Amino acid sequence: MNLLSVDTISEATGKLKKYAELISPGTENAGLIQAVGRILASDLSSLENIPPYRRSIVDGYAVCSQDLGAASDMLPTFVRITGEVTLGKDSSGLSSGPGQGVYVPTGGEIPEGADSVVMVEYCEAFGDGMLAVSRPASPGENIVQPGEDIHKGELLFRKGRKLCAQDIGTMAAAGITSVPVYAPWKLTIISTGDELVPPEAVPGPGQIRDVNSYTIAARSLEEGLCVNRMIAVKDDRESILKVIGQAKEDSDIIVISGGSSKGKKDMSSELIEASADCGVITHGIAAKPGKPTITGFDQSSRTMFIGLPGHPAAALMVFEQILIRIWHDMTAQPEERVIRAKAAANVQSAPGRRTFQLVRLTENDGIEAVPVFAKSGMISPMSRSDGYFVMSENQEGVRAGDPVDIHLWT
Amino acid sequence: MNLLSVDTISEATGKLKKYAELISPGTENAGLIQAVGRILASDLSSLENIPPYRRSIVDGYAVCSQDLGAASDMLPTFVRITGEVTLGKDSSGLSSGPGQGVYVPTGGEIPEGADSVVMVEYCEAFGDGMLAVSRPASPGENIVQPGEDIHKGELLFRKGRKLCAQDIGTMAAAGITSVPVYAPWKLTIISTGDELVPPEAVPGPGQIRDVNSYTIAARSLEEGLCVNRMIAVKDDRESILKVIGQAKEDSDIIVISGGSSKGKKDMSSELIEASADCGVITHGIAAKPGKPTITGFDQSSRTMFIGLPGHPAAALMVFEQILIRIWHDMTAQPEERVIRAKAAANVQSAPGRRTFQLVRLTENDGIEAVPVFAKSGMISPMSRSDGYFVMSENQEGVRAGDPVDIHLWT
Repeated sequence: MNLLSVDTISEATGKLKKYAELISPGTENAGLIQAVGRILASDLSSLENIPPYRRSIVDGYAVCSQDLGAASDMLPTFVRITGEVTLGKDSSGLSSGPGQGVYVPTGGEIPEGADSVVMVEYCEAFGDGMLAVSRPASPGENIVQPGEDIHKGELLFRKGRKLCAQDIGTMAAAGITSVPVYAPWKLTIISTGDELVPPEAVPGPGQIRDVNSYTIAARSLEEGLCVNRMIAVKDDRESILKVIGQAKEDSDIIVISGGSSKGKKDMSSELIEASADCGVITHGIAAKPGKPTITGFDQSSRTMFIGLPGHPAAALMVFEQILIRIWHDMTAQPEERVIRAKAAANVQSAPGRRTFQLVRLTENDGIEAVPVFAKSGMISPMSRSDGYFVMSENQEGVRAGDPVDIHLWT
Repeated sequence: MNLLSVDTISEATGKLKKYAELISPGTENAGLIQAVGRILASDLSSLENIPPYRRSIVDGYAVCSQDLGAASDMLPTFVRITGEVTLGKDSSGLSSGPGQGVYVPTGGEIPEGADSVVMVEYCEAFGDGMLAVSRPASPGENIVQPGEDIHKGELLFRKGRKLCAQDIGTMAAAGITSVPVYAPWKLTIISTGDELVPPEAVPGPGQIRDVNSYTIAARSLEEGLCVNRMIAVKDDRESILKVIGQAKEDSDIIVISGGSSKGKKDMSSELIEASADCGVITHGIAAKPGKPTITGFDQSSRTMFIGLPGHPAAALMVFEQILIRIWHDMTAQPEERVIRAKAAANVQSAPGRRTFQLVRLTENDGIEAVPVFAKSGMISPMSRSDGYFVMSENQEGVRAGDPVDIHLWT
């Protein structure tokens, strides 16, 4: 294993990012409902005060607090009812000066002159238009001030935020009904190999089902990326080059998923060298799993290439660590939240390589990360794990009981 | 506040679940790519061994381990090369008996007779068909046994699992290309109120933008539910009843989101009483926020009704705690993962009511939950929070430093 000829993951990502600038994602406008789960493409501020006026948070009477003194059940204060605020109707003509009270329902605008609201429970209206109030009130009581929820000019969300249900509500409140979101990268996923058959086929002798295209396509969809097409091609140079040529016309990213053997890696490398005018950028990375990874870039068509290892777990991990990370970076998405757990067993790292260890989380006097070990090429451990932790290139390993930061699968 | 006339959240959910059985979600088949993020509707087992045959995990020579003895650089063992396994081609005729070796690429089938694979790095082929092997091997070395990844009959995923990218890959490997998933409930979301205007309008005096329909619709979409329509209706009994009548024809759930004042609550109650043949099931719940919540059921059209509080945070929380919980329950989804944090400040509960406290998570010698306080009716605190914790009906509150379990917004 010649470690000098390969890049660390950081080096590979760093080199590729420079080219990624050339395909920085565009933006498009999304309506409120279409924006669910999309990534905001610019900082978003409110152009209005919410609420726009002083609003009552209870059903009650708007009064002048100084009128009430020490009003009590035994000695209520009497004020004259001078009106009623009705939701949906213009109540701007109403006022509630000293000695007066105006009925205001929850959410209603506080009339001029009043500075607090007493809940209906503490008020008794008499037939003659007088109201007995049996509680004192402090200025501002039961009132939301204009802009107290959201003030005009306030930053609502930063660029890069993945918009969730609450955010949609906040935008609706602020009258924002169309927001710029990032347009997804378009991918073509090519799987190469004479031995590959589609998942619905029963593999004959020497054949194997195509797993990687499906894992990578599914992961792309989870991230909101657009999968233009998935194509399986035999190990025939000309056929693959033709497919790549077509893909360059409409895709930002071409993912080539081939076998993981040495010959296959060289083939991916040759194909990228032949198709991409900037050639191969990284040829092999210092990661376990994930060594046989190739990246490249074609400037004329603005297409990024990534050749993934053949083993499904390795392919997914490399796709995640390189392509999804760059996508997150280009779209200003904050770093994912990690969960601190303690290792349930000793785990060795691969010296000089960044090592990714699959784990399952369990509860055992705190959160415990149980390593899920997998022989090279196994598929089911991915599904059996909740996530993974990372050991750096110069870390020797992790001991049982050590704290580890778990990246959860989404 | 008459606590005797209201249900606890558990009571309300329990009562409603009995009716929910009558609208238990159907199932539909999804292809591999369509299945991303869907909820599996039955346990899924593998009908095959994966791998189906003994497979090499390296590029190397399949040999009989007993031939090699203590083979070394100094004293290699010589075997005769009797063939080569090629991926994608039938190699079942090949064998590798004593004194023989067969080249096998990564992923290739191990020929009969061989019991281990020596990596090419430790083999040197001579022109005369002989191979020098400079390493001993143990039986089974570098071989994945049939079914070692997934064995025939093995349970892959339980009913209720939300299928992720890795699962799609596992299914592809096992040749499962169509899976039963739950068909989403169909919702009609009705917002009522003379004061409501759509988000794109500038509210006039006494008017307010409709927020709840958007929050509830967005949250439904996040859960994979189907929003048939969102309709805003004025506070006119006949108009609302007409909309409800239409919705009963094609929806499983009718969400009525009105104002939160006392009059509005009574109106929702009357509307449900008039539209649902089983009438109102729960009239008010002991929760903060969320008291003015109404549920009902119409057996003839099999439609569930939920009348939400008018305040956006309360409406979302009730929708989450009652409707989404029942949906999860009906679709066998496991309980959400909570994050243990320590409270950053004292928080009071509402006596006798289940209290939901919004929090923002920060790092401060572990994960700290900072309460996000909100006056009734405020909207932005939902977006400012990362999730919430729950205080039970008989819990007095939480002290700074106490451990709290945080439910994260998705």
